[in-house]
Amino acid sequence: MAELRREPIARRWVVITKDPVRGPADYLPYKPPYQPQEPKGPCPFCAGHEGMTPSEVFSIRPEGRGWSVRVIPNKFPFFHVEGEFDRRAEGMYDTMEAIGAHEIVVEAPEHDQSLATMEPRHIERILLAYKERCLDLKKDARIQQFLILKNYPGVSNHHPHSHLLAMPILPRRIDEEIWGTLDYFKRKERCIFCDMIREEISLKKRVVLETPHFLVFCPFASLYPFETWIIPKVHAPDFHAATNEMVVDLSAVVQSLFTCFHKLLSDPPYSLVFHTSPLQSRFHQDEYHWHIEIRLRIGLREGFEWATGFFVNPTPPENAAAYLREVEQELRVESEG
Amino acid sequence: MAELRREPIARRWVVITKDPVRGPADYLPYKPPYQPQEPKGPCPFCAGHEGMTPSEVFSIRPEGRGWSVRVIPNKFPFFHVEGEFDRRAEGMYDTMEAIGAHEIVVEAPEHDQSLATMEPRHIERILLAYKERCLDLKKDARIQQFLILKNYPGVSNHHPHSHLLAMPILPRRIDEEIWGTLDYFKRKERCIFCDMIREEISLKKRVVLETPHFLVFCPFASLYPFETWIIPKVHAPDFHAATNEMVVDLSAVVQSLFTCFHKLLSDPPYSLVFHTSPLQSRFHQDEYHWHIEIRLRIGLREGFEWATGFFVNPTPPENAAAYLREVEQELRVESEG
Repeated sequence: MAELRREPIARRWVVITKDPVRGPADYLPYKPPYQPQEPKGPCPFCAGHEGMTPSEVFSIRPEGRGWSVRVIPNKFPFFHVEGEFDRRAEGMYDTMEAIGAHEIVVEAPEHDQSLATMEPRHIERILLAYKERCLDLKKDARIQQFLILKNYPGVSNHHPHSHLLAMPILPRRIDEEIWGTLDYFKRKERCIFCDMIREEISLKKRVVLETPHFLVFCPFASLYPFETWIIPKVHAPDFHAATNEMVVDLSAVVQSLFTCFHKLLSDPPYSLVFHTSPLQSRFHQDEYHWHIEIRLRIGLREGFEWATGFFVNPTPPENAAAYLREVEQELRVESEG
Repeated sequence: MAELRREPIARRWVVITKDPVRGPADYLPYKPPYQPQEPKGPCPFCAGHEGMTPSEVFSIRPEGRGWSVRVIPNKFPFFHVEGEFDRRAEGMYDTMEAIGAHEIVVEAPEHDQSLATMEPRHIERILLAYKERCLDLKKDARIQQFLILKNYPGVSNHHPHSHLLAMPILPRRIDEEIWGTLDYFKRKERCIFCDMIREEISLKKRVVLETPHFLVFCPFASLYPFETWIIPKVHAPDFHAATNEMVVDLSAVVQSLFTCFHKLLSDPPYSLVFHTSPLQSRFHQDEYHWHIEIRLRIGLREGFEWATGFFVNPTPPENAAAYLREVEQELRVESEG
């Protein structure tokens, strides 16, 4: 049998199938929906090949040594800095130039690192690079929305990297969330994300872990098996306003969560995105609440999702969170023992 | 450089990248994002194994011979017929039973057929099976929406088959289309799909082919490379109300289009969906216009799309349509020669 659950923010219905419920073993071995091959030849993101990329716009060089995180413009950007919007009709249709920015955050000098293998101290530097670039790009008044996105493994290069997009429009998923949070705020004068945090902490069954600043949980109407969110426990609209203390806490959370995924699901492919408030200050400081969403790219029913905008998930989030909690406790005992 | 195009119905922005533009050769050979493996053992959908499936609810048996198309309930349905909605709160969240129907249309007795290899006369029978099942399921007043969906190759079985879903709610993508068509109708008192058809026929550059009843074209803001729509030229909200003459015409269109895809892109994987008007008669008879959308599962940027609800397409639809027209003309000359 199957159950329909309504995702409470954008109000999308999700089919949670329970006959049979799928656990980690049902997704293994991967028949990978995504097995990108790397191009031959030297990797432009590796230390020593800096000449192969555009000039860096930012880097972190601890104690005067070589770079440990490096940010460069994307060679084939989805959004470009130069030019005008030139918004115009094309017959009955609308079009404009894709103004904005599209940068690549090279997360480490080494080719074979991942969030599960990096030290928290190194993850902290990546997070700081995201933050610094957002603070800089924010000066461009044309930018409406940041998106920080990581695919693992990378689509065209397996060197650990992420995309930082500064967009002139709100992407549909953020727009839907904004619409939902506004509607909720109008009725209750409370942030829906804050309410979810309280609910999940009191119920516990979908919580993976909790730290001083962050909650990690599998949402009630998870669109995907093992979908997991990382969210600051205190209301905060903008990721780029996170304090250093929060960044330190977050880097430990990220490392711990991805070690769990690695252990439980044998190094699964995933996508990770930061959802943060739109930049125009008239927007939603009280309503919107930044967070990270993680989707494992396993067991996809992609045709169905595309056709309908409707999701089918055979691993209820309560089960997913229980598996993840268990492995997190094992790892904690191991590292303390 | 990249251009933003607004999909005119749901008003989603799409990034069309043109640096470089990608043609068919750039997608080959496939690093398949979808390479489902078939389970071992006999195929339950093949002729002679009917005992392995639930009892059929419909079949077409030309001239008293064995079945040529067969419809059965899905063994693991996303929506089930029995029970009540039981709509209820779960803490702050909403949930209900997934009431509806989920049937499998087995498209042929043979395992190794595809829309590119079937005779139009056979495709006609598949279309008639869809239509008959919709007319029957329509009697259940709980059903709000039909979805006919085909994945090629099938996810868990390569035997040619499609899914017929009868859903108690409007899926998000249909809901967005309805919202967009209503808004357009309010301003112009015209169907937006009818306007698109006129625009595309007059411009020609995105048209693949045109028959007495149907237009085949690549939409202005195609979300995916080689995205193609088949739409009746005269306003019609419901697929299940198509006349026999239209069904005959459509079966030839489908066969011809999929032969083009096969020839141009070497038997690409695809998903196909029918978008048809919601069933409640208060809905949109003047505004909604049924059509078929086809998405090739090639060159996906899935992580990005998931993160944003925002699409990046490196093959502008004008180029896609030109490639398809060319191969269609070649095939026409071959078959006439």
